[in-house]
Amino acid sequence: MNHGKNCQDGKQRWAIALHGGAGTIPRDSSEARKQQHIVALTEALTIGRDILAQGGTSLDAVEQVVRYLEDCPLFNAGRGAVFNREGVNELDAAIMDGRDLSAGAVAAVRYVKNPISLCRRIMEDGEHVLMAGRGAEAYARNSELELMDDAYFHTEYRYNQWQRELEIPTAAVNRGTVGAVAMDVRGNLASATSTGGLANKMPGRVGDSPVIGCGTFADNTTCAISCTGNGEEFIRKTVASRIALQMELKAQSLDDAMKDVVMNRLSRDSGGVIGVDAQGNAVLHYNSAGMNRGAADSTGRFQVAIWEW
Amino acid sequence: MNHGKNCQDGKQRWAIALHGGAGTIPRDSSEARKQQHIVALTEALTIGRDILAQGGTSLDAVEQVVRYLEDCPLFNAGRGAVFNREGVNELDAAIMDGRDLSAGAVAAVRYVKNPISLCRRIMEDGEHVLMAGRGAEAYARNSELELMDDAYFHTEYRYNQWQRELEIPTAAVNRGTVGAVAMDVRGNLASATSTGGLANKMPGRVGDSPVIGCGTFADNTTCAISCTGNGEEFIRKTVASRIALQMELKAQSLDDAMKDVVMNRLSRDSGGVIGVDAQGNAVLHYNSAGMNRGAADSTGRFQVAIWEW
Repeated sequence: MNHGKNCQDGKQRWAIALHGGAGTIPRDSSEARKQQHIVALTEALTIGRDILAQGGTSLDAVEQVVRYLEDCPLFNAGRGAVFNREGVNELDAAIMDGRDLSAGAVAAVRYVKNPISLCRRIMEDGEHVLMAGRGAEAYARNSELELMDDAYFHTEYRYNQWQRELEIPTAAVNRGTVGAVAMDVRGNLASATSTGGLANKMPGRVGDSPVIGCGTFADNTTCAISCTGNGEEFIRKTVASRIALQMELKAQSLDDAMKDVVMNRLSRDSGGVIGVDAQGNAVLHYNSAGMNRGAADSTGRFQVAIWEW
Repeated sequence: MNHGKNCQDGKQRWAIALHGGAGTIPRDSSEARKQQHIVALTEALTIGRDILAQGGTSLDAVEQVVRYLEDCPLFNAGRGAVFNREGVNELDAAIMDGRDLSAGAVAAVRYVKNPISLCRRIMEDGEHVLMAGRGAEAYARNSELELMDDAYFHTEYRYNQWQRELEIPTAAVNRGTVGAVAMDVRGNLASATSTGGLANKMPGRVGDSPVIGCGTFADNTTCAISCTGNGEEFIRKTVASRIALQMELKAQSLDDAMKDVVMNRLSRDSGGVIGVDAQGNAVLHYNSAGMNRGAADSTGRFQVAIWEW
């Protein structure tokens, strides 16, 4: 899956990949619902492509793509976040800048319309990296970020999903996350991830998305990574930093390192990973039934898919 | 610093190391205060040594050592936790089992007397790994763990330190963390870390301690690691998993990998790391002025120190 390398006739390279969760859409979903996802993924990818093609930064691209996916009720992040065991939406997110490893992350926050922009504010403030719960909400309030009441996050689809989950727990399929990774024309990498976490999770449960080195990572010398899947397993196996360090310490390609981790180290049906490397290769692997995803680059690649490309 | 290897005449090997924060004690502290630290470190190390020498598990050893340090008001964890910007004590902790990478962690919790035991409960429950804030406190309440009101955490030393900090901010020295790593006679590795975080931190700020792969990590195939220092930098550089992966992917010794990360990759005066490997080598490095620390093993090693051994 080595798109975009050495085939650009001097044009400035850029690349982006995004995901909207792995294993979340049953293959027997209605055509209308599948189509809604494809349309939303296409719109998100277009936002990122346009920013990068116009010379914008990878940070802006991943933030804006994730904001779109947070605002779209189809995906488990922001507005479309799943409900936890008490019927509340608690959100996790992280952003990372591959230039200097600066990062911002939030865990178990409520009310914040766009957690990814709160992460960016924390990163740019520079004092702290990770903020949780009440304190992160107070920080958002002081930063004049947009806050919403519970009703905003109360989408009918997720509420009904939660009610079914209370009857017949099937946590394995009720996960999802959104994320984006990008390389801009200056060769800078960035990653962003945002999620409502596991459906019916315990209040306070935090997944891998805001855990730097697990669900989110970016380092210009190797790659930018965003994960989606069984958060507990992605934390214990430090998935994102393992992919980056297999590239750095074993001289593996992004494709080889990611494939090894997703196919050999993660248990079957645990999720997926997207990444870009410093040469502008956008790579996507998953070991679940499907992954909402897309990739575009300066060679003209522009693909979105749920199952096979 | 390769103690304990190949010199045991068939005796069953075990090893333990602990820390009580890096760079926290000025060299011109009173002799009485230095002595208090040495006595406490000695008592903590004795608890761990006794558990391991009697064939106990590394998990029990690291949990009990950290509980002692949490209860001791001298150290920035549990009772002796520093105050945040609003005069509140918010605690972070994690525990990890090198046998199967299972882990439990809490971020920004209040009221919990022994956060490390809450982490162990979360780990053994097995449903989630990381829990934050309100939800983690509710979990502690439901688990019948001991809760304390704010007065318990209101130690005069930390309160005065916070008052001085409000006048003249010097965040760089007002950090500290406690941790322990151990190998038991079955060769199983475990790690535990607990902290009150940065003095005068923003409410909700979470450091590296509960971030698996950054402040805490354990994997029987490589090492168990616990960090203390500038949490934001330890997160961005994924310190613990980098040490483990330099061992796994570059065949470095624990001593070489840790020295490289602490001395070459972390900025000066950022903190320290302790670790044990699967051969029972206990290794401790720091790049700050000093580190409250101790190490013991089945060869008879038993050392505690703040500056030089």
